[in-house]
This record gives sequence, C-alpha cells and structure tokens, in this order.
Amino acid sequence: MSTDFDSSERHAAHPRGMSRRRLLGLAGGGTLGIVAAGATGGVLGRATAGTATAPVAPGSDAADAIPFTGRHQAGIVTPAQDRLHFIALDVTTDSRDDLVEMLKTWTEAARRMTAGQDAGPVGAVDGNEHAAPDDTGEALGLAASGLTLTIGFGPTLFTTADGRDRFGLAARKPAALVELPEFAGDRIDPAISGGDLCIQACANDPQVAVHAVRNLVRLGAGVVSVRWSQLGFGRTSSTSTEQATPRNLMGFKDGTNNLKAENGQALDRFVWVAPGDGGPGADWLAGGSYLVTRRIRMLVEHWDTVPLGRQEAAMGRRKGSGAPLGQRAEFDPVDLTHVVDGKPAIPADSHVALSNPTNAGTAILRRGYSFVDGSDGSGRLDAGLFFIAYQRNPETGFVQVQRNLAGDALNQFIEHTSSAVFACPPGVESGDDWWGRALFT
Amino acid sequence: MSTDFDSSERHAAHPRGMSRRRLLGLAGGGTLGIVAAGATGGVLGRATAGTATAPVAPGSDAADAIPFTGRHQAGIVTPAQDRLHFIALDVTTDSRDDLVEMLKTWTEAARRMTAGQDAGPVGAVDGNEHAAPDDTGEALGLAASGLTLTIGFGPTLFTTADGRDRFGLAARKPAALVELPEFAGDRIDPAISGGDLCIQACANDPQVAVHAVRNLVRLGAGVVSVRWSQLGFGRTSSTSTEQATPRNLMGFKDGTNNLKAENGQALDRFVWVAPGDGGPGADWLAGGSYLVTRRIRMLVEHWDTVPLGRQEAAMGRRKGSGAPLGQRAEFDPVDLTHVVDGKPAIPADSHVALSNPTNAGTAILRRGYSFVDGSDGSGRLDAGLFFIAYQRNPETGFVQVQRNLAGDALNQFIEHTSSAVFACPPGVESGDDWWGRALFT
Repeated sequence: MSTDFDSSERHAAHPRGMSRRRLLGLAGGGTLGIVAAGATGGVLGRATAGTATAPVAPGSDAADAIPFTGRHQAGIVTPAQDRLHFIALDVTTDSRDDLVEMLKTWTEAARRMTAGQDAGPVGAVDGNEHAAPDDTGEALGLAASGLTLTIGFGPTLFTTADGRDRFGLAARKPAALVELPEFAGDRIDPAISGGDLCIQACANDPQVAVHAVRNLVRLGAGVVSVRWSQLGFGRTSSTSTEQATPRNLMGFKDGTNNLKAENGQALDRFVWVAPGDGGPGADWLAGGSYLVTRRIRMLVEHWDTVPLGRQEAAMGRRKGSGAPLGQRAEFDPVDLTHVVDGKPAIPADSHVALSNPTNAGTAILRRGYSFVDGSDGSGRLDAGLFFIAYQRNPETGFVQVQRNLAGDALNQFIEHTSSAVFACPPGVESGDDWWGRALFT
Repeated sequence: MSTDFDSSERHAAHPRGMSRRRLLGLAGGGTLGIVAAGATGGVLGRATAGTATAPVAPGSDAADAIPFTGRHQAGIVTPAQDRLHFIALDVTTDSRDDLVEMLKTWTEAARRMTAGQDAGPVGAVDGNEHAAPDDTGEALGLAASGLTLTIGFGPTLFTTADGRDRFGLAARKPAALVELPEFAGDRIDPAISGGDLCIQACANDPQVAVHAVRNLVRLGAGVVSVRWSQLGFGRTSSTSTEQATPRNLMGFKDGTNNLKAENGQALDRFVWVAPGDGGPGADWLAGGSYLVTRRIRMLVEHWDTVPLGRQEAAMGRRKGSGAPLGQRAEFDPVDLTHVVDGKPAIPADSHVALSNPTNAGTAILRRGYSFVDGSDGSGRLDAGLFFIAYQRNPETGFVQVQRNLAGDALNQFIEHTSSAVFACPPGVESGDDWWGRALFT
C-alpha cells in the first residue's frame, strides 16, 4: 500500500491537538497542502464538504467553537444551533469499569471535537496504515461549527425494569428520574424510546453533528449499542434573546416565550438542578438538568387543509407575526383575559393558552428541531417536531405542561411517537474531569 | 378570530409575486414590519428560522436564487447545493387531465419557490382566514437558498407492470426508461423504490428544500401520494470545478473525477439526451436526462474498524489528500498501469479502478448526499449515501458502471437498499411552459 509519493503525507509533522482546519491550512509542504490549493487555486480554502460556513483564515479554527467545559454542560442554554443529531444508546456490558472507561474516552473525544479537532490525537489520515484511524474523517476540513455535545443518563442505567442494580448506581438514582407517564393520545413506539444513555449533538453544520455522534458510537463499541437516533434539520426554538424565533413545520413561530440563556433567575428556578433536589445520593446531579425528548409527528397533509383562521385559533397566535391573538407583535404579552367581540381573543383550548405559564404554573426550556423521516407508507410524509426540553424536575416541568395540553386544539394534528427522559450531569471542568465523574466516584 | 389589531396585517398591500423576504422587509407599516424589528432591534433581520445564511439587505432576494428556466432543468449540472429532499410519488388518479393540471400548478409553484417566493400568490399568512393558505409558511423569511426543483417521470407513469397504458403515454415511453436490473448483492426494499414521479429538491438551507417538497405534495393532493422520501444532509459530489470535493461517510473525498458543469462536450455525450435517442415518440425527452437513485447504506461500524491502509486499498485513493494511490494530489490522473513494488499502485479490485472510465467506458454525473435515517434496530446507525446519477442512457450509464463494480472491494461495507429510475424532461421556458408539456401535448 505505501508508495514513495505518499511519504510526505505520512511524515508531515503536526503537533497533536492541532485542529482539523489548522492542519489543512499549514501543512503546505505535504500532500494536504497541495490539495488545499486544489483545482480551484485555493479559492474555496478548506471548505471541503457541503456547508454554508464561510471560508475561514488559517489559524482561526476556534472562532466558531463553543467552550466544552463549564459549570453546566454546553448545549442546554447555548444559543440553539441549526442542526441536530440525537442518539440514545443501550449499555451492553455488565462491567462498570468498562462503562467508566468509555465515559472518560468520550469526554476526551468530546473536548477535541467541540474544538474542531479530530476525535483522537492521531486523526483520520495520519495514522499507522495497519491500524484503524482514530477519527472517521468526514469532518476533515470543516470548522468546529458551534458543536456542542451533551450527555444524559436514563433511568435504566441505574436500575433495570425488574429492579436490578446494574452498575451499583441504584442508591444514586435521583428521585425524579422515572419514566414518563402515558399521556392521552400517546402513540409511543418503544423501539425509538428510552435508552440508558443519550448524546445530543448540535451544530451549525449537520456533517459536524453526525461526525461527532458517529465517532462516539465508534469509541463505545463493545460497551454501548445504538438504540435509536434522530436527525433534526432545522431548529424550532430560540434559547437566547439574540436569536430570532424560527418557524416549525406548522409554519408558525415556535417558542416565542421560551426560557432563554439571559433569564438567569428563571434558569435557576426551572432548569438547573439544585443541591438537595434529587434526594439522598443524588447530589452528583446538582448543576445538571433533566432532559425530556418527544418525537411529535405532525399530520402536515391534514394541517395544510385547515383554514388560516382555524390554524391561528388552534395555536393562539397569528401565523405571520407570531403575535398572541388580540395583540400586535410577537413579544406582546399573552393576555388570556383579553376579550374581543365577547369572546377570549386567545381561545381557551389553544396551544398558547394551555401551555402558558399562567395555566401550567411552570416553565421549561425548549430546544426542538424539525424532522422529515421519509414517508409513513400510507402516502404521507413522516415529518414533525423532535421536541427537546430541559427542566429542573420532569414532574413539575414537561409532565405538568403536557397534562395541561390534554385538550389542546392542536392535538388532532399531532402524534407523540417516541418518549425519553434523561438526567444530564453538570458540566465538566478543564483537565482530567469526565462526564459522570461525580456519579461514579 | 379577527381582531382590530390584526387588520393592518390583513390589508397590508403587497404586489403578487413579491418574495418572502421582500414582503417582510417592506411591510413596515403592518404587523410584519413590527415583527421584523422584533425584540432584538432588527439586528437579526429576516433570518427567522435556523439557517447559516447571512442576513440580507431588503431587495436582494434574488441574490441566491438559481434560474428555474432554461434549456435543461436546473439541479442537474447546477453546482451541487448542500442539502437534499428527494421524493418519489405515485399517481393515484386515472385522470390525465388532473395529472396535467397538477403539473401546470407544480411548475408555477416551482417558479415561485425557486425565486424565494411563497408557493402561491396569496402566501402563507395574508389570505382569507376562511381558506387554507396557499403556502405552508415554514420558509417565511428564508432566502431562495439556491433552491432547484427537478422533476422526473418513472417507467410506471407510462405503462403499469401488467402493461396497461394509464394515461395514453405508452407510445411516448423512451426505450431506455426501464426498471433497473438486479445487481449482485442488492438488498432492495420495494417500498422505498420506484415511483411514477420524482422531485429532487436541492438547496443550501434544508428547511427551504423541505418546504418546497411539502408544498408540491400539498398541491398534488388527490392526484399523487408520497411513495418514499429521502433527506440528505450533506452533498457528496461536486458538479462544478468551482467546488471543493466533499467527503462521504467513509471519510473519503468522493467524486473527484465526476463530470462537471464545465465539461460541455462530455455532458452532451454522457448526460443530455439527444434528439432521436429515445426511440419513436420520445423526442419530448431531448435536452433531458435519465436519473438513477440508489440508497446505499454504509456499514459504518464495520468500516470504522478497518485499518487505514486497507481502507485506502479498497477505495484506490489516499484518505487524506484524495490522491489516486501512487500519485501526489487529488486531481492527479488515475493511472491503472502504475506499478509499485511489483504490484499495481491502485489495486485492480479497488473502487477507483473498477469505476474508472477506462474500465467502464462511460461516465455519469453524480449528485449524491449523505444520510442518517436513525438506527437499524440492531444497534447500528442506518447511514450512508443516497446516490444520484444523471446520464444520457441508464443502460450505458449507471447499469454499466454498476455491473463493473460486482467485484468492488467496497462491496462488503455497503448495501443498496433502494433503487429507482426516472426520465427527466428538458427545462421549461419562461411564460406558460410547464413540466412535461412536450410529453403530454
């Protein structure tokens, strides 16, 4: 396999830890440098794969990287990136040591990939030809793209359905980490629900999100297997006041009144787990959050036949502006007492009325994505919203909101087809810290 | 439903045909104008949904639009956009008139959406509240995003499997428009194969591609139903010398020697159907092309365990540079006679060797996209390449290439799970022309 011509690439010196982009930008004497110039005289720089990311100058590799370390995990209040790859995994080993070792390996890989580097120190193309590469290569030349990786632990990691303490973690299980109840109208498919572990990968380039998940799966071989996996092509929530509100596949602005990164006190009240919250043994979760996912199929073919006025009455907002009915602009207050022509401007069974904090008495941080997963075999698109919510306690968060939505006028246009809950530990620190250290030690 | 406050929006005057973006930019006196400024003082402009597209100045709406009309359909040699939504449909009516009417309606909507406008002249938010909107709304505020819409006609549109002439088109069926043969190793699922019609939507914002497909499905209600649908998150081909070569999910640069928009003579020889090509009655297809799609699952978990040298030997190229083995740089010639250490530098069973024009005696224009469609239920990702190829004749194009790949060293890492062939008519002209006019009249 080796050839004379290729030796320059094999031996191209580059420090461990150098980013994918910097590698390609600086290795001008080797094969890679020649390729960077390529057939187009270098006009396209290092944008080797399909991406809307603008070309970047060599050395600016950290420009669009989001810090991996911190008090909380990134990817929760981080301004929502455009694309999602979410994965739930089953742990297939009985060895606690192997599980811990994988979490350490994952953390190291996550540190690297969120900084725009290969998953491992050797990289996709620079290793021993007799060994499998420690990166899969499809993100070579792509920027960090705002990648965040957020891990969660499912109820079954602590105790199996029949009560078995799989990894000696039963005493550390937070009281609030229980499977979600069944809700009216649920059409949950168990095959795409639950999971021992989850990873939420968000990025502005979908190939970067997919690359990250795929490499973590690779590094987990023999310890975990893929339970289910969901791509989301477009964000449907803003999690920062700096972001404009996107539209979901019903064509409406979604999440106008979402909790936002700037709502510090509300985040402490509604999103972050406080010491003592989780019951005896669960202090490891302080600074973390509970993650609820729901795959919500939208019956878009039906919805698209509904008159505009009825769509708006079901939602409780104007389709164009996003204004609450009876108001002028998107961020005008939702006033459930406002009456027009003797009737509530916002119908009592509208989504906005029933999910409003005034009714629900709580708040959740939403972080969902639109999906299209092919067709349903009956002539329709299988499309909708992959709903993601973070909260301090699922029972007083999503569960309470969802119970209030039992009479939601939108319900005839949607179906919940997947459900999961995870406890997301606090952030990792710099150095040798790793995902779940406080849980396992 | 109507309120005093909302009347300004209902009556906001804007000419028919004004683009989504211009509408939001200029309607400053109405609700939409207020919203455009929004909570952030207008900093984010009209980028209302998740997209990496930079904010654009009002009036610049056509900047990233690709012309819909022309001698050939757009979306074939158009520089490959980043994202894909492909859909295959079954015609559910027996009425030729209804089918023709739908094709005319589709053409008009395609003209509008590729220009960054709503699917219909009223729009998603400005219609009669008692009528369903003529646009679904999720692309409001998004740019044209390089959207192309390309239509194809499947063999079953002309004659059913039992030979029935459904729409009086049997005599117009091109001789080369026949179902693809079965190839060694095929694992084709009929439920996600074939189709009477197809639409390929490519765009740089996935929400724009999804929006376009979804609105064409909506406009086809009662005439067509969705047979299957495939999203692709990242392009794996370049179709212009202006584009850098992207990487597929094997981590390799894909399609280095692809036909490109700039290869005029080769396109006439290998891509565009010439008058007389299709046999008696098929001159309507002159200037068109045949489209072959193959959903190629990659067994990525297996591939990721393969040593670098063996990966490169199977591909026939270096993973880093993309250079043919034995050469220095990506675009160096593929020299199958080059010998290193007494052996061919490019192994005879490598993908590059077997698919090389020297062996295959033909060329096809590839336009594929990477996909991840969740998991396979057995602990692995369901990921791979949605292969798209355009050619002048499937028999001397894809079929010939694929037969040559029977011994491809890559075959043990891939599975073809879906297959389809379509005849794509020539481009439509300005004015009253419509998709398929030459076929139906």
